[in-house]
Amino acid sequence: MYRPEIKVVDCTIRDGGLTNNSHFTLETVRAAYNAACRAGVDYVELGYRNSREMFSPDEYGPWRFSDDSQLTEVTEGIDPGATKLAVMMDAHKSTPDDILPGEDSPVDLIRVATYVKDIDKATHLAKVAHERGYETTVNIMAISCEGGPTLDEALQQIEQETNALAVYVVDSYGALYSEEVHFLIERYKMFIKTKEVGVHMHNSQQLAFANTIEGIIKGANYVDGTLYGLGRGAGNCPTELLLGFLKNPKFDIEPLLEVIGEHILPLQKEIDWGYHIPYMLTGIRNLHPQAAIEWMNSEQKDNVAAFYRKLETEFE
Amino acid sequence: MYRPEIKVVDCTIRDGGLTNNSHFTLETVRAAYNAACRAGVDYVELGYRNSREMFSPDEYGPWRFSDDSQLTEVTEGIDPGATKLAVMMDAHKSTPDDILPGEDSPVDLIRVATYVKDIDKATHLAKVAHERGYETTVNIMAISCEGGPTLDEALQQIEQETNALAVYVVDSYGALYSEEVHFLIERYKMFIKTKEVGVHMHNSQQLAFANTIEGIIKGANYVDGTLYGLGRGAGNCPTELLLGFLKNPKFDIEPLLEVIGEHILPLQKEIDWGYHIPYMLTGIRNLHPQAAIEWMNSEQKDNVAAFYRKLETEFE
Repeated sequence: MYRPEIKVVDCTIRDGGLTNNSHFTLETVRAAYNAACRAGVDYVELGYRNSREMFSPDEYGPWRFSDDSQLTEVTEGIDPGATKLAVMMDAHKSTPDDILPGEDSPVDLIRVATYVKDIDKATHLAKVAHERGYETTVNIMAISCEGGPTLDEALQQIEQETNALAVYVVDSYGALYSEEVHFLIERYKMFIKTKEVGVHMHNSQQLAFANTIEGIIKGANYVDGTLYGLGRGAGNCPTELLLGFLKNPKFDIEPLLEVIGEHILPLQKEIDWGYHIPYMLTGIRNLHPQAAIEWMNSEQKDNVAAFYRKLETEFE
Repeated sequence: MYRPEIKVVDCTIRDGGLTNNSHFTLETVRAAYNAACRAGVDYVELGYRNSREMFSPDEYGPWRFSDDSQLTEVTEGIDPGATKLAVMMDAHKSTPDDILPGEDSPVDLIRVATYVKDIDKATHLAKVAHERGYETTVNIMAISCEGGPTLDEALQQIEQETNALAVYVVDSYGALYSEEVHFLIERYKMFIKTKEVGVHMHNSQQLAFANTIEGIIKGANYVDGTLYGLGRGAGNCPTELLLGFLKNPKFDIEPLLEVIGEHILPLQKEIDWGYHIPYMLTGIRNLHPQAAIEWMNSEQKDNVAAFYRKLETEFE
């Protein structure tokens, strides 16, 4: 019933860090890590490793930088089982200088997030990371805006120049419908012959989990989720739903439910992720959720028809 | 780009009535009706027409009975445009005596909800309603529990004995995945040759909208939604998402957003519908959401791992 090749990546702390400038407590991060290890999740992504020159440590918490010493505080005393540790580097916001030799690091996998325009930076980062002993993936963001031939070239370049384990379809705007997911995975597979395809979906239109399933049906073997869907705007594909769908007996959903009850649900007092009309409207229009996030932080939050009219006017 | 045959049924007041014993104010019901008419929604379902012998009017609000006189108070002074009015009758909880002659009624469509075991009652109700001048549909509930040959017989019976416009796949438990939706619609279409197939999906696993799309892809032409997904447990497919997906220019999403902002979002203070772990767990296990609803109303609400263990123990 199950496909053993499928790898689940829980990126709660990394992606959720976009909601709170990566200010999670060490206790929460350790609980999320511990739960992922006990649940048998394949990879757990504990933050960005982005440049301190672009993000001020006064403003951003430790999981925006994810120094090895900080990560060791997370993993200390916890049996990882088969679970590996990942961090994400944005191609345009990080530097190869921050990739220290892999043998001294708790990090197993470096995921390079990139727009198509930054693909040269991304392949360079992925190459350096591989040379220094890390597993790598390349995650192409805002894929719903990348319809042109430069995507094909980027895929070809990743296929030829990197040792990435997987190349991701990242639906940053939550704009894709199932038929578009099918189309994109087929397009990726025209160029990606020696690596896996991955999917990272956003929930603007309540389709993150559904589109992840559609990715799996078309052969994607790297799939991302976050606990209870925690993430920017409407959030992500919930990892617990993914584990409920996948039938691999190595997974155990119970530790995820425990950490959700104890650490994630309480975050709802501060962070209002999930389905909201402003996010749905940027999703339908294939826009970055930034305008919706600003609206949700304003006093007019619930005047959703006014936000609709604003988008109609500004983008007519 | 669009399929003109597709009919959208907004059943906010009917399905949402399961969350509050159908106690909506007349003002809210008029606003929902007005919005559906202005949005060009094909049908708006304003309640159940169930028996006062089974539901006490002391406990249940007027939209559990939906008398013609009550419905006329809703429609008075509102231009329906092309929007028609529907009510639902449960095959096992209503009586043909409550179907008054259609020419005197504001109701256009009577939807008969049934389990497979009650199919004889359902076809009888549908026949009486048709004879008295109404359009009809037959909506087969809890379809994820109906795998056996009796479903085929029920479909054959509806096809042969009724004039229903459509026969529905109703995923009461929110248990279906896309491949199962495809399978069920193909199965329906083996027997349903002179009527349309409809889909009514629940959101226990965040798949209500996605599964509705999959139904449409496989040819379902009657699709249900509710405003902002209002409905029992995790709720329904949001009508606003449906209208965003469908490209028929007769639809206008703006009136729906207005009524959501003004009347539906405020209901969140009293009704906690939407994605919650207990609903997700009954969905995954293909169970009626009742146990999850009770858990959500208890003081242990957020101890979701305990609910998981409860289900593991009770259903082992």
